[in-house]
Amino acid sequence: MSEFRTIGLIGRHGDVRIAPTLLQLCQDLLDLGRTVLVEIDATGLTDCPSAVERASRDEMARRCDLVIVVGGDGTLLSAARAVAPAGVPVLGVNQGRLGFMVDVAPVEMRETLAAVFAGRYVREQRLLLEACVHRAGGIAGPFLAVNDVVIRNQAAIRMLEFETWLDGEFISQHRADGFIVSSPTGSTAYALSGGGPVLHPALEAIALVPICPHTLSDRPIVVGAHQTVRVVLHGNPTTLAMCTCDGQHSESLAAGETLEIRRSAVRLHLIHPINYSYFNILRNKLHWGRGPQLKTDAD
Amino acid sequence: MSEFRTIGLIGRHGDVRIAPTLLQLCQDLLDLGRTVLVEIDATGLTDCPSAVERASRDEMARRCDLVIVVGGDGTLLSAARAVAPAGVPVLGVNQGRLGFMVDVAPVEMRETLAAVFAGRYVREQRLLLEACVHRAGGIAGPFLAVNDVVIRNQAAIRMLEFETWLDGEFISQHRADGFIVSSPTGSTAYALSGGGPVLHPALEAIALVPICPHTLSDRPIVVGAHQTVRVVLHGNPTTLAMCTCDGQHSESLAAGETLEIRRSAVRLHLIHPINYSYFNILRNKLHWGRGPQLKTDAD
Amino acid sequence: MSEFRTIGLIGRHGDVRIAPTLLQLCQDLLDLGRTVLVEIDATGLTDCPSAVERASRDEMARRCDLVIVVGGDGTLLSAARAVAPAGVPVLGVNQGRLGFMVDVAPVEMRETLAAVFAGRYVREQRLLLEACVHRAGGIAGPFLAVNDVVIRNQAAIRMLEFETWLDGEFISQHRADGFIVSSPTGSTAYALSGGGPVLHPALEAIALVPICPHTLSDRPIVVGAHQTVRVVLHGNPTTLAMCTCDGQHSESLAAGETLEIRRSAVRLHLIHPINYSYFNILRNKLHWGRGPQLKTDAD
Amino acid sequence: MSEFRTIGLIGRHGDVRIAPTLLQLCQDLLDLGRTVLVEIDATGLTDCPSAVERASRDEMARRCDLVIVVGGDGTLLSAARAVAPAGVPVLGVNQGRLGFMVDVAPVEMRETLAAVFAGRYVREQRLLLEACVHRAGGIAGPFLAVNDVVIRNQAAIRMLEFETWLDGEFISQHRADGFIVSSPTGSTAYALSGGGPVLHPALEAIALVPICPHTLSDRPIVVGAHQTVRVVLHGNPTTLAMCTCDGQHSESLAAGETLEIRRSAVRLHLIHPINYSYFNILRNKLHWGRGPQLKTDAD
Repeated sequence: MSEFRTIGLIGRHGDVRIAPTLLQLCQDLLDLGRTVLVEIDATGLTDCPSAVERASRDEMARRCDLVIVVGGDGTLLSAARAVAPAGVPVLGVNQGRLGFMVDVAPVEMRETLAAVFAGRYVREQRLLLEACVHRAGGIAGPFLAVNDVVIRNQAAIRMLEFETWLDGEFISQHRADGFIVSSPTGSTAYALSGGGPVLHPALEAIALVPICPHTLSDRPIVVGAHQTVRVVLHGNPTTLAMCTCDGQHSESLAAGETLEIRRSAVRLHLIHPINYSYFNILRNKLHWGRGPQLKTDAD
Repeated sequence: MSEFRTIGLIGRHGDVRIAPTLLQLCQDLLDLGRTVLVEIDATGLTDCPSAVERASRDEMARRCDLVIVVGGDGTLLSAARAVAPAGVPVLGVNQGRLGFMVDVAPVEMRETLAAVFAGRYVREQRLLLEACVHRAGGIAGPFLAVNDVVIRNQAAIRMLEFETWLDGEFISQHRADGFIVSSPTGSTAYALSGGGPVLHPALEAIALVPICPHTLSDRPIVVGAHQTVRVVLHGNPTTLAMCTCDGQHSESLAAGETLEIRRSAVRLHLIHPINYSYFNILRNKLHWGRGPQLKTDAD
Repeated sequence: MSEFRTIGLIGRHGDVRIAPTLLQLCQDLLDLGRTVLVEIDATGLTDCPSAVERASRDEMARRCDLVIVVGGDGTLLSAARAVAPAGVPVLGVNQGRLGFMVDVAPVEMRETLAAVFAGRYVREQRLLLEACVHRAGGIAGPFLAVNDVVIRNQAAIRMLEFETWLDGEFISQHRADGFIVSSPTGSTAYALSGGGPVLHPALEAIALVPICPHTLSDRPIVVGAHQTVRVVLHGNPTTLAMCTCDGQHSESLAAGETLEIRRSAVRLHLIHPINYSYFNILRNKLHWGRGPQLKTDAD
Repeated sequence: MSEFRTIGLIGRHGDVRIAPTLLQLCQDLLDLGRTVLVEIDATGLTDCPSAVERASRDEMARRCDLVIVVGGDGTLLSAARAVAPAGVPVLGVNQGRLGFMVDVAPVEMRETLAAVFAGRYVREQRLLLEACVHRAGGIAGPFLAVNDVVIRNQAAIRMLEFETWLDGEFISQHRADGFIVSSPTGSTAYALSGGGPVLHPALEAIALVPICPHTLSDRPIVVGAHQTVRVVLHGNPTTLAMCTCDGQHSESLAAGETLEIRRSAVRLHLIHPINYSYFNILRNKLHWGRGPQLKTDAD
């Protein structure tokens, strides 16, 4: 039998529209002889087959061979941070709109699962980041991030002043709305909106992207993923910034405190359909190849 | 009867696919009692009704009340430069793919024309640019441009060095691949690819956009359309740049020579369907509102 | 005698370093026969000549023929919003570092004032914006802005969703960190960091600049200053955004509420030295002409 | 004795201003007991000490332990392509203006050389690119590039259409002015002007940067340096593009032909002063830390 025997299901919280997909998944997985765990607070899941167990994300991390996420990339990010440390791979089912990581459409779900259980799939590793806040009272963290660690001001009015270091070498001082430290996975998320480059998912690299920098030449920098990035916040006692992992978990940062970001020892394992193509998803999500027809001179 | 009695037809050169649309247009216009002139070298138009006259663009400029362009925005740019100086308005029919200016689909053509002839249409003025090259031997030009006047190097290797002036006030020195001087109409064409802003078509303004500038703070500047822009090319006797209007008409520029761009006294009159919306076209062409889903944290 | 007889002095709050400049200004102005008002809470000004009156900004707006600001552009923005509605012109003295608007160096101060009082100066008008928040309970505002009106989220995690309208025509839906509506004066401030163009200060235009937009083609748009911009915030009851004028005055915005921005009837009158050049300041501030030497191939 | 016994000198061609520096270098090196070779066509070098030999770059590559370049980064690029294949390290002396790679000032030259010969220096490896053109008649190349391989159109008017592949996987179709394939070293050169990120010099990565792309979401991509990039030019028989290495060596590319870029087996060895800091040079060249003061609200 396949390596994937116990399967966890995690759906987007608060979205009743995914209940039919979750139910169908439960039935398909039971039909395929799998043990099925569904997240305890899965939304709208009232008529679950009795053979299905309810479980927390922690329990899934301990017991599952595979976790299937139903929802968007955000749901996958959150689930991944919970189960990746235990080495559990993740497969993403979207709700009709392709995501960067939730790349299985509901209509292809059954067929894809049969193929995956028969060993026909692409397994891909993604590097994760971990962030620590160094403050007078000690260290907070490490916190795991699949996409990015972002520093932003909490009071909306004032920009932040901070300095950046790479493995003990001073990079620069910055005045900006914030700073994004992004994994290759995160390079197509917030970092792209901030002007960062796309990083190939297999690249062992981290992108440093200042948000709305004061100095126009303060451009994105890509460094090796084995390097440690430190951000030291300047300011006065009223300065208050927030560090956020994947836009979901936050920790405050005060003047004089340091945020340290490095590659995590944990990797995220993504399970893709056998015909998976990173650039195919990118072309689809970024409207490449059917782009705006700007230069019309020669039409 | 409507103000539009004699109608000229100009199609994209070398494109046989537009012949059916042109023929249909001829027939529709004759049915509607119009005098129809078709461009002499219209491609693939073999079975034209005998009532249709063949005419040059110059003759159309003299005789027509309206010119209908069939093709893409590039065809319209070229036709507009030919007939706009005579004050002839232009209406654009695309070939199935919406353009920024050719905004009537072939299937809506007949109905749109009936409405236009009944006085139900939107008439819009667009400002045009004119460019002159000042050199030792005299002045070349003025050349008309609907979208933009672009300076680029002719030898691909070396960047250009030039300085810019606005109404006699020095702006700056530049080292760049080139320089785009764009009308509001052109702001969604090449200037947008070069990092320029979208200018509302009714704005009396000109955008100055350096192409791949050496200095990262050498950013696009928007100035008043009543102002005169001068670009003085630096370099040595081997320096050779090309000034191009709408990507279609070119004039060389040598070191020490000056390119002068100002608003033309000529305006382009565009005839749009009655439900015309500039932002609707922009949303469609730029994929706004169905954009790439980059930030997936909260999905 | 000159039109400038009663002069108000406003210094950067909390900055004791400007006290000597303020004192020198008081003495120079008294020597030149002027009536001098100093802001009541001017920092560190202990030994003020007895002939100098203390006054509030409101009183200055009523009584002064000219207000001189000592500090940075931020100080001038704040002072301008206070006295511009009364038509009082403003002159800016920096503290050794040129600003976009505080363009008189302390060492040139005395000479510049003598020239100004002798009628040798450049008077420049800048358009201002005014913002209103339309909510169920009524209208808040109008609030005056010299540089920009900015919408940002208050909770740092979630991006904003909003739609924009121009004079009743729908522009687009946006998903972004925020939105900047900038005057030409503000185009070299926050809007420039956000990717907006430089707008010539005499241009009657407004720049609309999305902050870190989700959709990569959601680019800055420049519209006529006579047009009214409306931003309608989407979201749910937990959505909370903040509208800020010049980064200094804030007003909250909830889902369903509308922010309306238009050109103010008020203009800011700036008094510059006779040799004032807008582009000279721009070149200096943006390091043009001594820029980074990126393309070194041919060196 | 040091490993550096035979030293080659290469100066910027056609620049007589560097003759004094070259002469001083000859004398210093002879004083330090070195064998000195000067490039045969070194400009303005009339009074060379008789102990100095004249040599071609090829001869330098065969005989030298170190080549010292006097000039700008462009001179170093050219010299590096000549001697790097032989493993000869390069040290750069600028002419008073810091370069990204020519980082020794003339006044520090003597002291730096003494330190280098005493073993106190930083040796740094930079990856190089090699480009081949695959056409019907066979393969042209490989051509070596330190900074970048750039495809541009030769006729200035029309943009290029091409497709890109990575290790046999299709990336995308592009419509753009051109395409930059950049090493980390080149990431601060032309690629930065084109909107690319800074790549840390030790990163084994390549940046793919479209020039003025038609589609606004056609953004820079960073891939692993072990991957092979192919660019296939579309078009018709009149299409003609040029591939250029470091802006210095060119090869034409016709429609249907393929440009293949990969990491070269050759590395460039740079010799830096012992206090070398990459980010220090970057801060200096990009004006970081003394940047334009754009956001002045809080001043």
